[in-house]
Amino acid sequence: MQRAAALVRRGCCPRTPGPWGRSQSSAAAEASAVLKVRPERSPRERILTLESMNPQVKAVEYAVRGPIVLKAGEIELELQRGIKKPFTEVIRANIGDAQAMGQQPITFLRQVMALCTYPNLLDSPSFPEDAKKRARRILQACGGNSLGSYSASQGVNCIREDVAAYITRRDGGVPADPDNIYLTTGASDGISTILKILVSGGGKSRTGVMIPIPQYPLYSAVISELDAIQVNYYLDEENCWALNVNELRRAVREAKDHCDPKVLCIINPGNPTGQVQSRKCIEDVIHFAWEEKLFLLADEVYQDNVYSPDCRFHSFKKVLYEMGPEYSSNVELASFHSTSKGYMGECGYRGGYMEVINLHPEIKGQLVKLLSVRLCPPVSGQAAMDIVVNPPVPGEESFEQFSREKESVLGNLAKKAKLTEDLFNQVPGIHCNPLQGAMYAFPRIFIPAKAVEAAQAHKMAPDMFYCMKLLEETGICVVPGSGFGQREGTYHFRMTILPPVEKLKTVLQKVKDFHIKFLEKYA
Amino acid sequence: MQRAAALVRRGCCPRTPGPWGRSQSSAAAEASAVLKVRPERSPRERILTLESMNPQVKAVEYAVRGPIVLKAGEIELELQRGIKKPFTEVIRANIGDAQAMGQQPITFLRQVMALCTYPNLLDSPSFPEDAKKRARRILQACGGNSLGSYSASQGVNCIREDVAAYITRRDGGVPADPDNIYLTTGASDGISTILKILVSGGGKSRTGVMIPIPQYPLYSAVISELDAIQVNYYLDEENCWALNVNELRRAVREAKDHCDPKVLCIINPGNPTGQVQSRKCIEDVIHFAWEEKLFLLADEVYQDNVYSPDCRFHSFKKVLYEMGPEYSSNVELASFHSTSKGYMGECGYRGGYMEVINLHPEIKGQLVKLLSVRLCPPVSGQAAMDIVVNPPVPGEESFEQFSREKESVLGNLAKKAKLTEDLFNQVPGIHCNPLQGAMYAFPRIFIPAKAVEAAQAHKMAPDMFYCMKLLEETGICVVPGSGFGQREGTYHFRMTILPPVEKLKTVLQKVKDFHIKFLEKYA
Repeated sequence: MQRAAALVRRGCCPRTPGPWGRSQSSAAAEASAVLKVRPERSPRERILTLESMNPQVKAVEYAVRGPIVLKAGEIELELQRGIKKPFTEVIRANIGDAQAMGQQPITFLRQVMALCTYPNLLDSPSFPEDAKKRARRILQACGGNSLGSYSASQGVNCIREDVAAYITRRDGGVPADPDNIYLTTGASDGISTILKILVSGGGKSRTGVMIPIPQYPLYSAVISELDAIQVNYYLDEENCWALNVNELRRAVREAKDHCDPKVLCIINPGNPTGQVQSRKCIEDVIHFAWEEKLFLLADEVYQDNVYSPDCRFHSFKKVLYEMGPEYSSNVELASFHSTSKGYMGECGYRGGYMEVINLHPEIKGQLVKLLSVRLCPPVSGQAAMDIVVNPPVPGEESFEQFSREKESVLGNLAKKAKLTEDLFNQVPGIHCNPLQGAMYAFPRIFIPAKAVEAAQAHKMAPDMFYCMKLLEETGICVVPGSGFGQREGTYHFRMTILPPVEKLKTVLQKVKDFHIKFLEKYA
Repeated sequence: MQRAAALVRRGCCPRTPGPWGRSQSSAAAEASAVLKVRPERSPRERILTLESMNPQVKAVEYAVRGPIVLKAGEIELELQRGIKKPFTEVIRANIGDAQAMGQQPITFLRQVMALCTYPNLLDSPSFPEDAKKRARRILQACGGNSLGSYSASQGVNCIREDVAAYITRRDGGVPADPDNIYLTTGASDGISTILKILVSGGGKSRTGVMIPIPQYPLYSAVISELDAIQVNYYLDEENCWALNVNELRRAVREAKDHCDPKVLCIINPGNPTGQVQSRKCIEDVIHFAWEEKLFLLADEVYQDNVYSPDCRFHSFKKVLYEMGPEYSSNVELASFHSTSKGYMGECGYRGGYMEVINLHPEIKGQLVKLLSVRLCPPVSGQAAMDIVVNPPVPGEESFEQFSREKESVLGNLAKKAKLTEDLFNQVPGIHCNPLQGAMYAFPRIFIPAKAVEAAQAHKMAPDMFYCMKLLEETGICVVPGSGFGQREGTYHFRMTILPPVEKLKTVLQKVKDFHIKFLEKYA
């Protein structure tokens, strides 16, 4: 059944050739495995081989850290060894990793973390009182007053309370219950945990999970791992990557032929597409989910990253409540946030939370049980999450510095979002929608027929071929659109806007020069 | 097929009634779900219910944080509300959480962590130079010199190098390759990742995973999640919980009737059983794995926790190499370590590593791909792991204090191991094997027939009934043996030896008094 389901999944959701080289060669290996059970192919026979391994794991693709990133690592080593290149450094614009790009941590956050880590510092006069207050509160809620103890599986109680208070403020008073908050190891952990609980059934009853195309490839990867059915709905590139409910209807209708669509995933602000959903659109989506009995997953990790003056972030939770009790007491929703994005960019701490709405009480028990197997999320990441949701307030010693640092990061990102859009749109053969939010550009690129042929000769997706050339010629590492999904025959790449302004200008100029040369070469 | 496999699993590996109340009631619900597809049972129909959820997740049990711990939480709340009990505090001896029990963090470790967290402190005269040196080294290996950046999916390079150097020292010069080291989110993450890659096949070809009984319930939980087949081998209680290779032979022979046994899990020192395997036993196990073509998983998180003067820790890796090239170049092995146990007890940081031996190069690629979906383990946990494997050395400023703190923790644990064994063995109806290592006692308890009947009337496993009574009457929280597995008709519980010596004495006295009263009541 698993093989059958895997074939159904591939059949119903055609993918462009995956960017993960290994998993392409493994397709042939998989085919041969159908014929002979344990083929002897390695010099010494191994128990664990591409043929014998979990086929669902083999099917996983994850472009953001895929072959292009491996290549970038090789080039860096070559540079270190003194091998001459047309550039002196690799610029990793493939991943939303702000601090790796030079963004400084928020001082207050790190002060509280240091105090929690080494409580002797609570006596030091060089730390502000409001930071000490936060640290004491967190430590008092930890077993043995230490970050080194396990927390409850759901997370430290007082941090869940702070998260609930934050959500209530954010949503203009719509109440949040700490009992509905689960701290997680980054948002990825929460998303995969909730999907793990949701997936069931076999054959045509196998759970279908609706995801946007383009998507963040965590979704397709987890769907592969769980042997669920990926149901694509396409965002409207001609309309600033807006979500169109008619497209949701088409997708769910077609999916019902071969699976049981049970989950609808939304990424808002969008990754990689950067659109910010209008309130009206969110209402339409919620109504659709209610009508079609879909469990809603709202990935809202970029909620602080909105740049376009015409856009505002609306949480699914808030809109759900404003639509009235028929929705707010019925639609099942899980929404996700993270310490990794926003203005703090604390990716390494792996902090995050999810809020669940209308989850069946028995399922809450199951969720806690499942989480308890992994004991708890990193307590340092939980502490980082606490500072994000409980920052200094006016009147507190650190308020001014905190606000200055936060606004500096977000102001710069807004500037860079506009800069990137404008510069890309000056290049012939590149079109870039406005970067309303998040931290990526996802421009559409024209790839000439001759380049498509050259890519095919290299057994690469055309945009992978393009990105590899870009990397080799300029040192700039971006991710091909095929890693996120795109309408057939269209090509894109995802690039972060995280490098400092001057560096970003250089990057954009280099992409422009490369692109013009590329068009000439393959004209 | 999934349902069929689940039934096979249950059929072949009889379990005593699970301690997780919810999952017992869910068994009935599951049975009814076979008859009707989406039964309407909740007041408002939910999409995600016990009936519709992932049945493999529903089958998961995890006793260490199961119903007894929920009950302990309720009692704590009652005490806080001023409700009178025969005790004034709940003592959580259910989980190996050293710092929650008052153990102080190792100063050097926390100093380095604080320096990494808030690098301004690198200028502070109140931190020793060797701590600063470690912190600088770690930060230089991080993107943007910050713990807030993502690391490589496999972990920070220089930390993997330090792990490899540590293993080489530990194993008397047997070389370790940093390329074979993967940093993980605690050991649990590494174990479940490698099992996830290993499990495949359907029906009688489904992967069988051999685990000791009693086991640490992470194993049974992950096997459930993955819908793999649990193959039990019993440790020999009459022989200090030793592993007997004849029992492995019996287990694998019987398992071959209904699955494909492909993995052999070993916990050494044992959890919950505390035995330390002899070198001869490890050789026998490796030979058996080689003969039977089994992938070896060696859970060695208690490698620093050996107390019995007659015992020494031998790593599987070292013994494998000493057995000669036929073994060392053929047997596939993954071994695991963690920051959570040992003398440091840094559970909350979720640090760990695994070392893989003879992994097929293509599988290494698959492993990195799978890990990359979750981006990276918490970088603070990686830093904590680094300090564990790269502690102060003689001549360095912090060496003396570090050694004193480390020896104090381990010396105390050895004292408490002996104390616990001796005191338990003075109680009629309790028998306790020597606690050679790890941090738990797993005494066998006699439960009178009348108490077994009373338990059945409460729909509880007899040892769950016993532990619930112990909790309600004394405030001491331990985990029933049924949560780990035990030979039918025998009963045990697991208790940590982590409370401070004087408190541990009180705990043991209370257990003794309770047990005698219990025997009298149900005589």
